[in-house]
Amino acid sequence: MPKQIEPVALDDAGSALVIVDQTLIPNETRYLRLTTPEETWEAIRSLRVRGAPAIGIAAAMGLYLGVKGSEAADFEDFYHEFRQVKAYLASARPTAVNLFWALDRMEACLLRHRDRPIPEIKEALRAEAEAIREEDARANRTIGEYSLSLLKPGMGILTHCNAGALATAAYGTALAPIYLGQERGYNFRVFADETRPLLQGARLTAYELMQAGVDVTLICDNMASAVMKNGWVDAVFVGCDRVAANGDTANKIGTSGVAILARHYGIPFYVCAPTSTIDLRCPTGADIVIEERRPEEVTEQWYAKRMAPEGVKVYNPAFDVTDADLITAIITEYGIARPPYTESLKELFRRKEEAERRA
Amino acid sequence: MPKQIEPVALDDAGSALVIVDQTLIPNETRYLRLTTPEETWEAIRSLRVRGAPAIGIAAAMGLYLGVKGSEAADFEDFYHEFRQVKAYLASARPTAVNLFWALDRMEACLLRHRDRPIPEIKEALRAEAEAIREEDARANRTIGEYSLSLLKPGMGILTHCNAGALATAAYGTALAPIYLGQERGYNFRVFADETRPLLQGARLTAYELMQAGVDVTLICDNMASAVMKNGWVDAVFVGCDRVAANGDTANKIGTSGVAILARHYGIPFYVCAPTSTIDLRCPTGADIVIEERRPEEVTEQWYAKRMAPEGVKVYNPAFDVTDADLITAIITEYGIARPPYTESLKELFRRKEEAERRA
Repeated sequence: MPKQIEPVALDDAGSALVIVDQTLIPNETRYLRLTTPEETWEAIRSLRVRGAPAIGIAAAMGLYLGVKGSEAADFEDFYHEFRQVKAYLASARPTAVNLFWALDRMEACLLRHRDRPIPEIKEALRAEAEAIREEDARANRTIGEYSLSLLKPGMGILTHCNAGALATAAYGTALAPIYLGQERGYNFRVFADETRPLLQGARLTAYELMQAGVDVTLICDNMASAVMKNGWVDAVFVGCDRVAANGDTANKIGTSGVAILARHYGIPFYVCAPTSTIDLRCPTGADIVIEERRPEEVTEQWYAKRMAPEGVKVYNPAFDVTDADLITAIITEYGIARPPYTESLKELFRRKEEAERRA
Repeated sequence: MPKQIEPVALDDAGSALVIVDQTLIPNETRYLRLTTPEETWEAIRSLRVRGAPAIGIAAAMGLYLGVKGSEAADFEDFYHEFRQVKAYLASARPTAVNLFWALDRMEACLLRHRDRPIPEIKEALRAEAEAIREEDARANRTIGEYSLSLLKPGMGILTHCNAGALATAAYGTALAPIYLGQERGYNFRVFADETRPLLQGARLTAYELMQAGVDVTLICDNMASAVMKNGWVDAVFVGCDRVAANGDTANKIGTSGVAILARHYGIPFYVCAPTSTIDLRCPTGADIVIEERRPEEVTEQWYAKRMAPEGVKVYNPAFDVTDADLITAIITEYGIARPPYTESLKELFRRKEEAERRA
């Protein structure tokens, strides 16, 4: 695991959300202390904190901080304030389901404690946000173990965007098997797609894998086909922002293209998904809202000069949907789902509920 | 056609190669006057002049200028100087065959005139370089007509890199049908891949299509799959740097990926290739040398700050090979070749030789 990266956490006093500003990596490691819902919303919207699991954690913590100072004297007033902050934070980004999942989980926690005094409810919300973070770290480690069971030492692995430690509480999802493999001498060779327009692969994945001493090679997105054709890739691992009930998977723009290339070259394509990212209420990928972002991300951001003509029309979707039939397996903290996903994902959730009942 | 772009020409006095510096577009339109082989070599190597046909034209003109001032008194001395300049220019870039084709054609011209006085040979070389340029302009127009015959008004066309007016003497190859369609009210909707790392799509294709009033939308390379899935693409048109005898085609890095996506989505994938780009002596794509360029193109060039960690390993091939079986048709100035290309390309060359005999 990369050392000393703490992408998203409450400070010890529980009075601020502390994130590393991911828009500045690798040039600078700057931590931000966020205390208001507006600051949390902006940090999520601007991708200062990003990655579906990390967004969920940040939103839960931001929601706690947003009601922590409430002076409401009775539950109904408190709940009203809570729902306002919740709705506001939910509007930060539309695609990753973890945002809504974490906020809903916070609301369920609040409702479980509705008969308690307000200070106790606040404490329960803080504990719930911390629990979301701790469960994510454990889920990542388990996903890493399941994923590693699919790999052999010396393999070449291609990944897109960043589904690493920076995207989660720890370890990452798609990068978890790489970190576990690194601890166990697997000597993977990793290819990181730079992931335009926001370059999460170049800036974040290359950074955290290098920090951990992993053999990583940066490529432009359009080089993935050449790298696969060279025979350098034995498996593709990606994270995801939302998995529909049928296995269709929304992830960073370009993921569907990588999946199609993998199919063409006969390379297995794996999606790592904590169950918090699986949305059984969403029937198929067609039901997932795809965020479109501003043209300047493509034409100007990062650049010394603008890199396309003034006024050029730009299409800038932040995600795309990979059809379930292109996905070899979906790897969760409750096991590995194989097609047909409509059945196997339901079975995983049955396993999850059973584990929760036993706990 | 875009107005007033003159990518590569001899000046009226035949004393300089005048190119527009394509590394500065779209921020600046600066013309450079190149007189020495070193300047021409650098302009080709640095992509100030680029695109397979334009490279061939620049090399031919640069070769003429390189021997124009020769003080050699007899043919053998002149030929010796000529071959030195030729070998030097041939070392500028390895993949586009037009470079070698144009230089070989200049040598054949020189040898045809070996019994003439040196000043006459020089004049013949100048005329040959001009002829290469004029033939390219005519070939583009013909390729445009053949290509347009495959299209219908209102279609969506995706293109990768820049195979437009800037890459050729005029019109371009892959963009020729778009310009012809524009003149005839076809109202194409064009999607231009930005084409990392050097952004020829964002900087050059978007620029010249906008100048011509074409409806063009810029996308990142990794958005092509989403755009195709949206049903917005009816055909893909690309240029090429070398077509092998079996139809395998080297073109800008990422082209093979686009071809695989097109196959997946059932979209025809067309390669526009003047016969100067077809190398029948090269049996398959495996025999084409793929240029690898410096890592800084990916990690630093264009950027205000470096966009990947210091010391990151980078793989930066400038081209890839698209397998012949992914190509719907190869469109040349002598007609449209269909699979199997080993036969159809040979047939086109027979047609070409016959046309040349008749001329």
